[in-house]
Amino acid sequence: MIYLDNSATSYPKPKEVYRCFMNAIKHYFSNPGRGGYDNALLTAEKIFEIREKTAAFFGEDRCENVVFTANCTTAVNTVIKGVLKPGMHVLVSDLEHNAVMRPLEELRRQNKITYDIFSTDFYDDEETLQSIKNAIQPHTKLLFCTHASNVVGAALPIRKIGRLCRQEGILFAVDAAQSAGILPIHKKRDGIDFLCLAPHKGLFAPMGTGVLIGDGRHLNTLVEGGTGSFSLQRIQPAVMPDRFESGTANVAGIIALGAGLDFIERTGRKTIENADRQHILQLQAAFDSLPQVKTYVNFENLAAFAPVFSFNIGDIPSETVADALSQAGICVRAGLHCAPSAHKKIGTLEQGSVRISPSFFTTNSEINHTISTIKKLI
Amino acid sequence: MIYLDNSATSYPKPKEVYRCFMNAIKHYFSNPGRGGYDNALLTAEKIFEIREKTAAFFGEDRCENVVFTANCTTAVNTVIKGVLKPGMHVLVSDLEHNAVMRPLEELRRQNKITYDIFSTDFYDDEETLQSIKNAIQPHTKLLFCTHASNVVGAALPIRKIGRLCRQEGILFAVDAAQSAGILPIHKKRDGIDFLCLAPHKGLFAPMGTGVLIGDGRHLNTLVEGGTGSFSLQRIQPAVMPDRFESGTANVAGIIALGAGLDFIERTGRKTIENADRQHILQLQAAFDSLPQVKTYVNFENLAAFAPVFSFNIGDIPSETVADALSQAGICVRAGLHCAPSAHKKIGTLEQGSVRISPSFFTTNSEINHTISTIKKLI
Repeated sequence: MIYLDNSATSYPKPKEVYRCFMNAIKHYFSNPGRGGYDNALLTAEKIFEIREKTAAFFGEDRCENVVFTANCTTAVNTVIKGVLKPGMHVLVSDLEHNAVMRPLEELRRQNKITYDIFSTDFYDDEETLQSIKNAIQPHTKLLFCTHASNVVGAALPIRKIGRLCRQEGILFAVDAAQSAGILPIHKKRDGIDFLCLAPHKGLFAPMGTGVLIGDGRHLNTLVEGGTGSFSLQRIQPAVMPDRFESGTANVAGIIALGAGLDFIERTGRKTIENADRQHILQLQAAFDSLPQVKTYVNFENLAAFAPVFSFNIGDIPSETVADALSQAGICVRAGLHCAPSAHKKIGTLEQGSVRISPSFFTTNSEINHTISTIKKLI
Repeated sequence: MIYLDNSATSYPKPKEVYRCFMNAIKHYFSNPGRGGYDNALLTAEKIFEIREKTAAFFGEDRCENVVFTANCTTAVNTVIKGVLKPGMHVLVSDLEHNAVMRPLEELRRQNKITYDIFSTDFYDDEETLQSIKNAIQPHTKLLFCTHASNVVGAALPIRKIGRLCRQEGILFAVDAAQSAGILPIHKKRDGIDFLCLAPHKGLFAPMGTGVLIGDGRHLNTLVEGGTGSFSLQRIQPAVMPDRFESGTANVAGIIALGAGLDFIERTGRKTIENADRQHILQLQAAFDSLPQVKTYVNFENLAAFAPVFSFNIGDIPSETVADALSQAGICVRAGLHCAPSAHKKIGTLEQGSVRISPSFFTTNSEINHTISTIKKLI
């Protein structure tokens, strides 16, 4: 089996992650922050250690601003519903995932907010920035965009967008589901107010983990409940991260995230990015020589991208191609990838796309075998 | 070490749960519902199997009404914010956890809803029912109550309350965090509309799991996002369980829940309940002979209870006693247990209580050792 669906969730994980995960459920077995006995304190300290590690990795000074969530979607919803008040306006890119579009649409349908979609230019940052400038309104409160498209891989110039948002007094939130662990992200230097992560992808954590990094003390909460702190008060505590961490956390998942971050630190993020780049450029070179294969991005001309390659074979439905690859033991995803506006942009709203997403653990021979299988299919 | 904090999270879990959890992360490694290749389908089928198992265990006819959430708190918030619209009135018991009280208080502070607290009588169901009847208002939409108190263990007569709610046209939601897997619960026969579970407690699943059982097709959503279904539409799908399962789930946790349910089925829920009862009655008998020990419930006179025993030694702060037990290798929790109104009821709002919560895996000799340690402390 060749697994090329790392954009959905990464597989395999580093050995340390499996080891850590198994160790966690046996040795950090208490509910952290709820008891004063040894293992409860040990577990709480371990979670705190991962919080610090995550903060350091993404350039956040205050580790209490690292909030562990159920998944990236929950982190995104927490920002959107926490920040926005009636009458506010939001800007999003034309590459957003339904995790961003559906909560915004829900608020819009309730007549609470309005939003506009700015167009991105994969190859020209200035065009993207100009498109944002044109869309800013006096009541624009938040700009939410993906760091890298989960359909075409192309990365947006988040540091430049962050600077523009600062100048315009707009809060800047980034969905880094596809890029974290692969592309450089520094919350402070990139001018990001809220960073949303899917650690089970590029950070090699298990599924059932999510992270929101940002100062949420003045945000509305999505969920309130027991935090193990200030139990006497019936209103949700303002203190971070408790404010956004009601209920019992995925302790083993969070601890395994620590092992994923350690692996990336040890390997070097840049080494991972380079390996991923090579896989994509190898696919591009092969596909460029096949006239039947339609591709949508010229990766050679991109400043940065996540390892996500969408293609189609002629007008064949993307699902048909993915099924054929599946029968050859190659795991890829087809369809709309929960991001219809990205498909609209590249003209694949009906056909969808076959998406190949390799990881650091993908080998050259797996990429070669995939290419030769696609050639045979044609 | 003697672990007696199973009300916070259960430990140990059955061997099968550990085995299943470790197996899950290695063999069900794909994101279910996102791909069409073998392992994605295998993982989706496995999740579906656990959904069916959970539905059957709790008397829900439609397995699509089993929603996997991050934790019980998220399930509770999903119900409260999904059901309630401006002007509605809610009833809750005087034993509720902050998971119920804080979201209600948040809505009340926004002037959206009102709520009243009815008083429970541990020993007389009719008194409890009368108190509910007295509190019902014409615009009462929802009654939310705990099945068993996380402070004193006492169970509420949910079937009788369910019947009353049906008669009065009130939706009935139950927080079964402390009781599921131990006390009998049958959603249909008990007349429950929404059942909220903390599987990492009595169902022996890992932390980071939650379940909401109920028909949510017409409820507002708390979180919207990618569901892997109806990707083209920008509004959240109405179909269950997708409507409430946006983003990537805790796949290994859910699969391990299956092993927990299997263990309970094989062992017999009633066998587990009886074992837990014996532990509590043994504690009660011992404490009754110690005049320095203050207890708050006469378990002998309760029709049903969860294995949760609160006590204090004279006026010594509960934390001091818990610390002393911790130093003797006994893990219990002290303080307010995220449920201040239950403490108000039993008069321990300042002192808190020392809470002993054994499980099926607790041995008689562990209980005896705990009793003799407490005697030594005195």
